[in-house]
Amino acid sequence: MTIVPKGYSFGVAAAGFKRPDRNDLGIIVSHGEASAAGVFTTNRFQAAPVLVCKELLAERPLARALLVSSGQANACTGAEGLANCRETLAIAATAAKALKIEPEDVLPTSTGVIGAQLKMDKWAAAAPQLAQSLGTASAMDVAKAMMTTDTFPKLVAKTLSLPGGEVRVLGMCKGAGMISPKMATMLGFILTDADVEPKDWQELLSSAADRSFNALTVDGDTSTNDTVLALANGASRVAVRDAKSLRLLRACVTELCQELSYRIVQDAEGGTKVAHITVRGAKSNAQAELAARAIGNSPLVKTALFGCDPNWGRIVAALGRSGAEFEAEAVVLTIGGILVFEKGQPSPEDLDGLLAPIMRHQDVAIELDLHAGRGSFTLLASDLTKRYIEINADYRT
Amino acid sequence: MTIVPKGYSFGVAAAGFKRPDRNDLGIIVSHGEASAAGVFTTNRFQAAPVLVCKELLAERPLARALLVSSGQANACTGAEGLANCRETLAIAATAAKALKIEPEDVLPTSTGVIGAQLKMDKWAAAAPQLAQSLGTASAMDVAKAMMTTDTFPKLVAKTLSLPGGEVRVLGMCKGAGMISPKMATMLGFILTDADVEPKDWQELLSSAADRSFNALTVDGDTSTNDTVLALANGASRVAVRDAKSLRLLRACVTELCQELSYRIVQDAEGGTKVAHITVRGAKSNAQAELAARAIGNSPLVKTALFGCDPNWGRIVAALGRSGAEFEAEAVVLTIGGILVFEKGQPSPEDLDGLLAPIMRHQDVAIELDLHAGRGSFTLLASDLTKRYIEINADYRT
Repeated sequence: MTIVPKGYSFGVAAAGFKRPDRNDLGIIVSHGEASAAGVFTTNRFQAAPVLVCKELLAERPLARALLVSSGQANACTGAEGLANCRETLAIAATAAKALKIEPEDVLPTSTGVIGAQLKMDKWAAAAPQLAQSLGTASAMDVAKAMMTTDTFPKLVAKTLSLPGGEVRVLGMCKGAGMISPKMATMLGFILTDADVEPKDWQELLSSAADRSFNALTVDGDTSTNDTVLALANGASRVAVRDAKSLRLLRACVTELCQELSYRIVQDAEGGTKVAHITVRGAKSNAQAELAARAIGNSPLVKTALFGCDPNWGRIVAALGRSGAEFEAEAVVLTIGGILVFEKGQPSPEDLDGLLAPIMRHQDVAIELDLHAGRGSFTLLASDLTKRYIEINADYRT
Repeated sequence: MTIVPKGYSFGVAAAGFKRPDRNDLGIIVSHGEASAAGVFTTNRFQAAPVLVCKELLAERPLARALLVSSGQANACTGAEGLANCRETLAIAATAAKALKIEPEDVLPTSTGVIGAQLKMDKWAAAAPQLAQSLGTASAMDVAKAMMTTDTFPKLVAKTLSLPGGEVRVLGMCKGAGMISPKMATMLGFILTDADVEPKDWQELLSSAADRSFNALTVDGDTSTNDTVLALANGASRVAVRDAKSLRLLRACVTELCQELSYRIVQDAEGGTKVAHITVRGAKSNAQAELAARAIGNSPLVKTALFGCDPNWGRIVAALGRSGAEFEAEAVVLTIGGILVFEKGQPSPEDLDGLLAPIMRHQDVAIELDLHAGRGSFTLLASDLTKRYIEINADYRT
């Protein structure tokens, strides 16, 4: 059973935004005021809920509730979209009135088709169901309500022993396509009952996101709605103020975010593989990232992964066009620990034979040393399959 | 019937590099010394034939023959690959000895799997067949011999009336995957019987390539072998020296390269659509190109094209993450001339209804004005289909 942080209630409803009989609206309410932190998409077009969250967190880094809906992204919807988003906060506050929250206590998120306006009549009609559910639904119910093309819910929970006592950390996220987060993943919520100052909590979340959600790709497309929100409500009465406790909590949240990130790539639309692409010896971390992303987003590398084809030439070709600086002769490539390419030519082994069993694993480690400096980066990348095309050629129909 | 420039002979052979009974070796021999120009891949890993071509052209911008083989790319093959490439020049010179050419008169090109060494025994065995064919084969035969995953040969010919008389220009190319040329396309040959100085010819080719091969994408992957070579042998005895004749010839070669480029995207691996993506009003041409490439390489835009789905939110989302600078409110998007998005929100028409017939055309015009400056760029892009995955998951098997 999932260990849920103290002092949070969960609620869901089937509003029928896209399909009937499927929960597509979720709320998480903290019983007391919580330190709130968020990281958001860097896409120049930012969805209405992203703009509203940023505005609310800028006013005060505290919140009581996280709201999520799936079906419409409420992105590229102009003034009407913003007004609708604010209206959903009022609806959520009404639904959670037993827990005494105000509209400005609610941080909103949405995921779904870009450009469509929210179905406000369905929002209003769903409020009583949400109110009834609140307190009886589970964290897993909310994780399921935020799914779109996801094939499984993504929930990770941990307990952490700190000098001041035990705290619990829970995270959930959704994401399977339009995934190449620059600040966060599609949608993610992190909850803890530790007592953390808002400034520390934000710094901790940003650092964890950089090492997890910002280091994965499904298709190189960064969404307009990417958001990770985190609440720390202090219900454990364990204060996290000293450097050691903060370090332990940061490590715990980072590990939790990495586990959630892995699940996104594992559940990539149509995906069958998770490539762990590590570039070392680059001139800088940024150059290592440039190289890793060129490889991880290459359709030819991704289709070879799908075909279990050890076609390493495509990895080298993608590196060569990445823009990273290095000497071609200095590059060393290994796949699953097997030396494949160095000094500008393939290793003289029977590579196809050696690599065949490695390519059939779900997890494939691709490691490159550029011997040009000390920069490094590891990217998780999915493969590219016929199923991805099917899902995305028919997404709206 | 194709009008072939004067003073060139063509030869082909079925060497069996990949499959038996298919011509996979081609040669074009100019009867006299020709001005020679080339543009090459910017990939940091450059194939052996690319390195040899650049070396030969740096020594002297003149040549007698163009050689092409399909099956092995001879890329990432180290010193052995370079030695093999030089050996193929000798084999070609032997095959064409009736036309009195030396190994250093031959410019080599290759296309196929990266990392495999050339099959030199098959090269040697094919030389007599190539010799016998030389002079009886057609330009179309060579265009067919350079095909790999191409489904049709790509050949365009033009006649041009100049002040000094009539000249002929012929171009051929191959390319269907690993296509996002930065200097040229996969492989292309341009022939003319005009008499042009090497310096003018190179300048003219570079300019034409920038406006054609360098403005298309299939999958965002730039090959290690991209090469366009051009010969001008003067066999028409029409000298092109004056500014007017040079301008006319440049326009003719540019148009010819654009027609060849279109055919590459038309024949994109598994492709069913050609998107003409124009970005205007960017801060610079480079920023317009950045935006156009983000859209044209977006798997989500490409799968929507395949599905004939007017899912314009994906175009806007790709623009938003492209790195181009603009105000989100200022962007105007039209598809097939229909106003879709402006002032940060969709146009209030029944967009799906209006766009449905437009999305079913093979050619789809996507036009964006960023209202941030005067930069512009037009990119030709293919869609992404199940067939692309099939082709590339199984390429080597």
